[in-house]
Amino acid sequence: MALRPLPLETALREVGAEIDRLFETLLPVPLDSRARLYEAMRYAAIGGGKRMRPFLVVAGCDLFAVDRARALRVGAAIEAIHVYSLIHDDLPSMDDDDLRRGKPTLHRAYDEATAILAGDSLHALAFEILADEATHEDPFVRGELVAALARASGPDGMAGGQMMDLMAEEAELDLASVTRLQQLKTGALIGCCLESAAIMGRVPPEGRAGLRGYARDIGLAFQIADDLLDHEGCEEKAGKRVGKDAGAGKETFVSLLGADRARRQAEALVDQAIEHLLPFGAAADPLRAVARFAIERDH
Amino acid sequence: MALRPLPLETALREVGAEIDRLFETLLPVPLDSRARLYEAMRYAAIGGGKRMRPFLVVAGCDLFAVDRARALRVGAAIEAIHVYSLIHDDLPSMDDDDLRRGKPTLHRAYDEATAILAGDSLHALAFEILADEATHEDPFVRGELVAALARASGPDGMAGGQMMDLMAEEAELDLASVTRLQQLKTGALIGCCLESAAIMGRVPPEGRAGLRGYARDIGLAFQIADDLLDHEGCEEKAGKRVGKDAGAGKETFVSLLGADRARRQAEALVDQAIEHLLPFGAAADPLRAVARFAIERDH
Repeated sequence: MALRPLPLETALREVGAEIDRLFETLLPVPLDSRARLYEAMRYAAIGGGKRMRPFLVVAGCDLFAVDRARALRVGAAIEAIHVYSLIHDDLPSMDDDDLRRGKPTLHRAYDEATAILAGDSLHALAFEILADEATHEDPFVRGELVAALARASGPDGMAGGQMMDLMAEEAELDLASVTRLQQLKTGALIGCCLESAAIMGRVPPEGRAGLRGYARDIGLAFQIADDLLDHEGCEEKAGKRVGKDAGAGKETFVSLLGADRARRQAEALVDQAIEHLLPFGAAADPLRAVARFAIERDH
Repeated sequence: MALRPLPLETALREVGAEIDRLFETLLPVPLDSRARLYEAMRYAAIGGGKRMRPFLVVAGCDLFAVDRARALRVGAAIEAIHVYSLIHDDLPSMDDDDLRRGKPTLHRAYDEATAILAGDSLHALAFEILADEATHEDPFVRGELVAALARASGPDGMAGGQMMDLMAEEAELDLASVTRLQQLKTGALIGCCLESAAIMGRVPPEGRAGLRGYARDIGLAFQIADDLLDHEGCEEKAGKRVGKDAGAGKETFVSLLGADRARRQAEALVDQAIEHLLPFGAAADPLRAVARFAIERDH
């Protein structure tokens, strides 16, 4: 899994810079005692992460010629949800992590109470962004975006998956259960990126099967690759603690399948994801690059 | 502040029962390891509290002949936000409370991680409810509801007020600062109840000044009365710890004004709130009763 210099990396950096600028605008530090809250939100949301989710939204929106500024707003909303979930997952009573995106976790840099409130505030901000007419002029589209994100992040999506993950320390999960857990914990929000692109592109629900399949497959491929990196990996490159699932006695794709079969499974998923993109032609090349990146990255 | 038997209490109990039934339907316990998450959400959301916010939504919607089932959905969404905020505020790193609505707080009955996730899940549920077409057939109305709730609950509303409250332990606040803090911490969400009623009733923004004034006044009156109850009160009736603000060295309306002036101020606010309702005639009687209840209750 050696890192190769890809045009994708440039494209990811570009989207990352645009998302940073958007959060800069959305999070001006006020001149009262809420300053600390805004500073904490900025610490967590600006200048870190691969920005994979905003990139998926932007690349998905490009299939349907959606205005980039609007696609970036949707990407920022989903990233705000992702960042809030990282803040809360890192808390002492959850995964108790000290390092995130190469710097101290928010509750270590600030304090627990501020971290909880900054997470809650980014959670609300996500829906504020989507409900704003700057995101789309048609209120029906905005409503669909809100509904999709609330579903993907709530108890039947990301938060439900995180609960399953907490319970996994006490249960011996089989492959089907780990797959289901990961589909909720990380897959639902990745799915929401492509679903949101389809909504912005006015693709009716019955026309979204290909993008849904693509999202499902890369979601699992990313997770298997994460498990492989966690198994083999290096803390410095990951920017977070590695080897923690094995330490907690949790089953992963690697512990259940072995590293070789897990790697082959991830490769098969990437091939399958790319097949789903066939109808979109060359316009889907950035999405194909993301799929390959899932298993080619070293962080 | 003796409790008098009021028809309002019956009306509050009725709305409370309807909100309980709605949460029962919205939160079916799944047959997987997310069961604990749903049980925690139900523990916190069903069967407790005065249900003042849903009542304000329903009574506000009655001014504009909004269908009651739809008004209740909006009330449940705002109550879900209120409940999530109580769960997170009670956490050990925040107010560290053991008792809420007459029973152990969620993190005491379950654990901290489950409490954080149950709060996050109720947060997402609120927006899922509002974005559903069962709440309103017009997506523009749903979008306005989402925008209003996100604003009222985020860093420029409830969460921002909670941050100010955390910072208040280290600062000596004056009356203007305490007023501003409370307007964000509790006033914004109370305002959102009436704002949402106006949105459901198709009242344009420029026609909402009276309801906004009413909400602002009763929000402050409720807070002053809470401070008075906290100052004089009894833990058994309150269903939560009392006297904690004085214990934490925080300024309150009572510490700044003295009990007598605080009580007169609350009474003046209630009179002023009722004046704002003049244009609505007898249809606003339940809202008048709520205003009086703010200073007449003993819990």
